[in-house]
Amino acid sequence: MNMYDILLKKREGEELSAEEISFFVQGFSRGEIPDYQASAFLMAAFLKGLSSKETVELTQQMLLSGDSLDLSEIEGFKLDKHSTGGVGDKTSLVLAPLLASAGVIVPKLSGRGLGHTGGTIDKLESIPGFQTDLPMERFLEQLQKIGFGILGASANLAPADKALYALRDVTATVEHPSLIASSIMSKKLAAGADGILLDVKFGEGAFMKTPEEALLLSKMLVEIGEKSGKKTRALISSMEAPLGKAVGNSLEVREAMDALKGEGPTDLQELCLTLATQGLLMSGQMSEEEKARHLLVEKIRSGAAFEKFLQFVREQGGDLDAMPKEKEAAVFRAPQSGVVRRIHALPVARAALSCGAGRRKKTDAIDPGAGILLHVQEGDRVETGDILAGIYTHREEAVSEAQALLKDSFVIADTVALPSPMIYGTVYYEKGESVFSPMKGKING
Amino acid sequence: MNMYDILLKKREGEELSAEEISFFVQGFSRGEIPDYQASAFLMAAFLKGLSSKETVELTQQMLLSGDSLDLSEIEGFKLDKHSTGGVGDKTSLVLAPLLASAGVIVPKLSGRGLGHTGGTIDKLESIPGFQTDLPMERFLEQLQKIGFGILGASANLAPADKALYALRDVTATVEHPSLIASSIMSKKLAAGADGILLDVKFGEGAFMKTPEEALLLSKMLVEIGEKSGKKTRALISSMEAPLGKAVGNSLEVREAMDALKGEGPTDLQELCLTLATQGLLMSGQMSEEEKARHLLVEKIRSGAAFEKFLQFVREQGGDLDAMPKEKEAAVFRAPQSGVVRRIHALPVARAALSCGAGRRKKTDAIDPGAGILLHVQEGDRVETGDILAGIYTHREEAVSEAQALLKDSFVIADTVALPSPMIYGTVYYEKGESVFSPMKGKING
Repeated sequence: MNMYDILLKKREGEELSAEEISFFVQGFSRGEIPDYQASAFLMAAFLKGLSSKETVELTQQMLLSGDSLDLSEIEGFKLDKHSTGGVGDKTSLVLAPLLASAGVIVPKLSGRGLGHTGGTIDKLESIPGFQTDLPMERFLEQLQKIGFGILGASANLAPADKALYALRDVTATVEHPSLIASSIMSKKLAAGADGILLDVKFGEGAFMKTPEEALLLSKMLVEIGEKSGKKTRALISSMEAPLGKAVGNSLEVREAMDALKGEGPTDLQELCLTLATQGLLMSGQMSEEEKARHLLVEKIRSGAAFEKFLQFVREQGGDLDAMPKEKEAAVFRAPQSGVVRRIHALPVARAALSCGAGRRKKTDAIDPGAGILLHVQEGDRVETGDILAGIYTHREEAVSEAQALLKDSFVIADTVALPSPMIYGTVYYEKGESVFSPMKGKING
Repeated sequence: MNMYDILLKKREGEELSAEEISFFVQGFSRGEIPDYQASAFLMAAFLKGLSSKETVELTQQMLLSGDSLDLSEIEGFKLDKHSTGGVGDKTSLVLAPLLASAGVIVPKLSGRGLGHTGGTIDKLESIPGFQTDLPMERFLEQLQKIGFGILGASANLAPADKALYALRDVTATVEHPSLIASSIMSKKLAAGADGILLDVKFGEGAFMKTPEEALLLSKMLVEIGEKSGKKTRALISSMEAPLGKAVGNSLEVREAMDALKGEGPTDLQELCLTLATQGLLMSGQMSEEEKARHLLVEKIRSGAAFEKFLQFVREQGGDLDAMPKEKEAAVFRAPQSGVVRRIHALPVARAALSCGAGRRKKTDAIDPGAGILLHVQEGDRVETGDILAGIYTHREEAVSEAQALLKDSFVIADTVALPSPMIYGTVYYEKGESVFSPMKGKING
């Protein structure tokens, strides 16, 4: 077996055997297969595709290239959660304490963001003192004690994925469903949970642009997870508009806390409740959706979910009282009266980046208090001059750029349009295949 | 401009601008664009294709990456010739002296072979004392004096092509018409002749498997040459059976000398005459095909062409009298009576390689006298036990392998089949496009 023949086969669109994929991934991981052959492989795979079998094999080989967490000591159902990312996506900060308050263990490993806004780790680090690099032993103790924790991902989970991703990033081979799915799942499988709950987003603020693309990716993710012995489900949701009203690290932490108290934007609350319901069902503690949802609503109403969050911040060394107040440098006002028809996610994200909420390159520092706070959501009625958004930044020069971007974000019209559903449906695994179940009933909160 | 965006564009099948191709080739050539991006580009170009405009630009940029020969001091029409390669292809050794005897200057740069049999340089080096690395000044003097010369290609002609080819060779991106065409033509353009005559082969012993593939490549080659200001023509010929009867370095030199005397296999003579006729027409010395051909036949009959060859060998230091007699280690006999329907080129080539006529890897030494000498050609009638081929080798262990391969080469049948034409047609440039002219009249000698 040699890499040339593997490249030739993939170039011709043939299906590679498990042995061939293992040869490639392990050889590359050991440094025996050079970058230039790996990047040719990635481009061939991008253009010719990978079968479902190949995708599962690629994932498992990337998983095998490194360590896996062993969570077997911890009793109960351990659920990991992953979002494909979006603008204002603070879901993990709500979901993890909410599920933990209902008895599901959530051991979450997260990344930093390279993009318009920070990742979950960046958001948490906006809380003074918050530690995201606890020793594993301490982390396991915390899981046992309070039922959840959020840690920065260690370098040696699926190192082959890390190395391949670095190549994809510079060879225009990132946006392919099989490559995305295997990359996500290799890290999730290494994190050692019993179940994986996926929040797959589509729309202008997301990786996947259409519901169809998100569905294809979701089916792959679920299939990979289940074929690797994990309970796996995916929720598909829209990321056309920002999620909630806060975009920016500490602004989002505050909004997540609101949601845990049953306050704040309804779209965020609805998404978190729907995801948590699926997670609770996956744990096997409950089997009826209505009852599961009801229990979770109770955990919010009683304050138990919010209390979990406070416990968690204390355990990981954070001091919420020490969080500085964000500086509102300017506001963006409605240029006309009417109904907010659209809030385009991408220009809002770009405005937040200008303010200092994200990184343009790896070494950039994030301003934890920077970002955009929307005062309205889609469907709201506004009058000329009403404040539509606050611009939070310490960079004076960012204000006019943010103003211009926000001008592009808001579409105000005379008439109300039917809102498009935020939650598109769920994908679960049944009888050996991924099945899509469209969302019924209540939408958009 | 950056390489990522260029990769993205090519991945999506869009046409690159001249500036983008220049950015890639020159950046890669200077070592600023890493191998892994270059190989991803090659795979994307392989799978998405390059337009005719892109192919011409790629060629010219590879040309610009290095030096070009300046032949302007030498009077007369300078014609370069290139064959895409085949089994028993000693055409250059016949064509160059034949054209020189008719007043066309042939300054030929050749390569060594990495494959079943040697390249032109390897064949010439089977003549004791023959020098293929003369200083350029000496070479120019020789061109002036006797009208032709054959030299090993220098490293600094189109170095970007050399580096890209090395990558293609290990990333399964060799066999693409645009990449093949630009690679061939960048070196030919750098060699400084006024015209380029191409011998494009198809069939099992060639790179291109079908006449259609060869035609596509020929049209590209001619277009690139003409758009770069060179008279360019291509002859398309079959390489299903070996060319002539000799396969192996010194065996082929002897057969080429026979052809220059008007002796030996008619297929070789016919191909060389047809090519030389095109070359003579390209030089502008003659305009009528019949007359040009007649002049060339006269040059062979009179001994002028063969005399040119002898002069050439002397000029470059070779001693034909010192050529050792090849050792016939065994013969292959007809297993049955009948007519030779097919002599498959590929197993004959493999048999010659086993005997020691070629290289499996760059550092292998060639045995100059090794090879296969066919005693028959397609269409010949044979009786059981007749000698079909001689096996020339110093490796005893190669004999049985060669026997087995020759068994696969010969197809003997009861009935005669119509021979398929060896020469398929010519491609020339007219009114801004490559035009195909199918071969009329006499075929297969």
